[in-house]
Amino acid sequence: MNYCGSINTPYIMKTTDTDRPTLALTKQLIAAQSVTPNDAGCQMLMTERLSELGFHIEAMNFSDKHGTVQNFWARRGNAKPCLAFAGHTDVVPTGDLKQWESDPFTPTERDGMLYGRGTADMKTSLAAFVTSIERFVSEHPDHKGSIALLITSDEEGPSTCGTVKVIQELEARSEKIDYCLVGEPSSTNQLGDVIKNGRRGSLGCVLTILGTQGHVAYPHLADNPIHRCGAVIEALTNIEWDQGNEYFPPTSFQISNINGGTGATNVIPATTTLTFNLRYSTEIDEAGIKQKVRDVLDQLDMQYEEDWTLFGLPFLTEKGALVNACRQAISDECNIESELSTSGGTSDGRFIAPTGAQVVELGPVNATIHKVNECVDINAPDQLSRIYEGVLRNLLL
Amino acid sequence: MNYCGSINTPYIMKTTDTDRPTLALTKQLIAAQSVTPNDAGCQMLMTERLSELGFHIEAMNFSDKHGTVQNFWARRGNAKPCLAFAGHTDVVPTGDLKQWESDPFTPTERDGMLYGRGTADMKTSLAAFVTSIERFVSEHPDHKGSIALLITSDEEGPSTCGTVKVIQELEARSEKIDYCLVGEPSSTNQLGDVIKNGRRGSLGCVLTILGTQGHVAYPHLADNPIHRCGAVIEALTNIEWDQGNEYFPPTSFQISNINGGTGATNVIPATTTLTFNLRYSTEIDEAGIKQKVRDVLDQLDMQYEEDWTLFGLPFLTEKGALVNACRQAISDECNIESELSTSGGTSDGRFIAPTGAQVVELGPVNATIHKVNECVDINAPDQLSRIYEGVLRNLLL
Ligand SMILES: [Zn+2]
Ligand SMILES: [Zn+2]
Repeated sequence: MNYCGSINTPYIMKTTDTDRPTLALTKQLIAAQSVTPNDAGCQMLMTERLSELGFHIEAMNFSDKHGTVQNFWARRGNAKPCLAFAGHTDVVPTGDLKQWESDPFTPTERDGMLYGRGTADMKTSLAAFVTSIERFVSEHPDHKGSIALLITSDEEGPSTCGTVKVIQELEARSEKIDYCLVGEPSSTNQLGDVIKNGRRGSLGCVLTILGTQGHVAYPHLADNPIHRCGAVIEALTNIEWDQGNEYFPPTSFQISNINGGTGATNVIPATTTLTFNLRYSTEIDEAGIKQKVRDVLDQLDMQYEEDWTLFGLPFLTEKGALVNACRQAISDECNIESELSTSGGTSDGRFIAPTGAQVVELGPVNATIHKVNECVDINAPDQLSRIYEGVLRNLLL
Repeated sequence: MNYCGSINTPYIMKTTDTDRPTLALTKQLIAAQSVTPNDAGCQMLMTERLSELGFHIEAMNFSDKHGTVQNFWARRGNAKPCLAFAGHTDVVPTGDLKQWESDPFTPTERDGMLYGRGTADMKTSLAAFVTSIERFVSEHPDHKGSIALLITSDEEGPSTCGTVKVIQELEARSEKIDYCLVGEPSSTNQLGDVIKNGRRGSLGCVLTILGTQGHVAYPHLADNPIHRCGAVIEALTNIEWDQGNEYFPPTSFQISNINGGTGATNVIPATTTLTFNLRYSTEIDEAGIKQKVRDVLDQLDMQYEEDWTLFGLPFLTEKGALVNACRQAISDECNIESELSTSGGTSDGRFIAPTGAQVVELGPVNATIHKVNECVDINAPDQLSRIYEGVLRNLLL
């Protein structure tokens, strides 16, 4: 493992921390500078405590051109159903340090909030995983089914040696997760108000519009692909892909990059390249999207080349045992009815759902994730721990 | 002067050359490797012979950040009208040497053509300037008016220290050119079929369309400037700028470069930049063009920044003494009626015309200029010399 640049100043426990064990563990995790893909000792803080509860811990480290990623798979019992908590110890970089009102790796309470990089995404959830299991197992050592944790340290990085590889390993030995609760910060305004029960698919394309190079003074001898892009952009952005459904908003289309031209101001280029991305619902699929794009381009009589990349299939966990267990636990703890949503970017849930597992994301308020002065409500860690404990109870008793 | 890279192998005169003195001088000039901005001794070959005819030669070298450029201004007599021949000794680089069928700096006769870099653009014209004047002056030593030459070596380069600076110098001392014949290769299919009696203006703009950066998964929080460019391109390419006139084709608009995007596939960029160029007629002006662009952008409710550059004002020499003198000389020598045209790129004529001079371009067939295997008909040099001699006769006797 490569810990360069991540000097840890361990968090020194205070007497008040004993009342709030999840807050205390959250602080310990924040003090570990686990900027992606470094774990910086976070997984050790978790596995030490899980071992004491009878978990069988497997380190599952994987390497590729990006480096080595530290993951673990921990499981208590072998019976079905298997409820797995999934999450990541790595955090995004701090951004401009001058804009932080306190050091991002020194957990700091201020005005009822806990500040630090990773408070919301997602060290509060990691701490709540551990403490909820501790209480549940001590009260119900003979619970039914089994409890597991799938923890990675590259969710914020290339995501090539984390969850996707652990799942491949489990699939290879036919080890199945039945219910998977991903600790991603799903809440919008208050803890538990939103559960994500799916994610849109993500499909990208590099589209090259072909023309004929020439000199701007002799346009009749050229065919300007930039000019052609006017109609292409207009047509592509006006496609109705679908209307979404009960769970998904309509599929959305965005061009992220456009590049044409030699740099010279007097040359008409031969090609212009558009890079676009679709976040798509379960009402359309990869083939349907490609067909609509090709129909538009052919109708405009374009010459073009396409290069498609599927970043993630959409997934959806319809109302059922896992969704109900979460909603009930939230209602019991927070007295609110949670909403189901599939909005936002991709998450590691896309790797777990294809195994047949029910997958939801349930975690803190996400308003400050990936920003400076990331924070959660000071009560969120222990409250989230009680919600997770409720989920354990609802599914494994 | 910087002659680095230009090793000259002087052309050895042959006995057959005495019959064709213009062809011979053209060959001498081609053997000088005057890749822009190097003159490589070409001007010396000309001024030695002009001195013998009673020309007063002024070297006019100018320097800027691009380096030093060698120019000369030569004049025989002080009377009006002043007929000046203008041209450049520099040539564009050879391009891929493997594609040349003979060495570009070894003048080579093959199948009735003379091959070599600069044969058409424009060493044939330079040689014809000298030999036509030699014959004319020896027959008519007391011609009326005066004869001048304005020769630069940076027409193919940045064009900042050549003709533009010589003209400034002449203007500063109130020395006026009445008729200017630029030796640029104006002919299309046969020598003399086209005279360029003007050039379109060239106006450029870097247009930045402003949006709001965001993440492709949350497009409602962003304002995608690439999407906005669809309508912008459609609208700008559909503007009718003017309909041209007797001398000019309609103004044309071409986008040469478009760039938007951070490189990341999941980020909506804040801006997208379009670089465009107009080749414009005398039916519209800079202010009129800008107004049309702004009207379109404002109508589309765009937020934008503009950065305009005027590369050259349009110029036009209507039918009159100079055009007539050229057409008559072509008709006498080639028995064809020449066409007037203002098409093509900019030339140094744009710097001379604003002084009030009549300006035309008349030179060899331009089919091979700036290409490999550049060539002219073997008869072109001496034929062009006779045309130029006719022009001298028509204007100065
Ligand atoms: Zn996360
Ligand atoms: Zn030229």
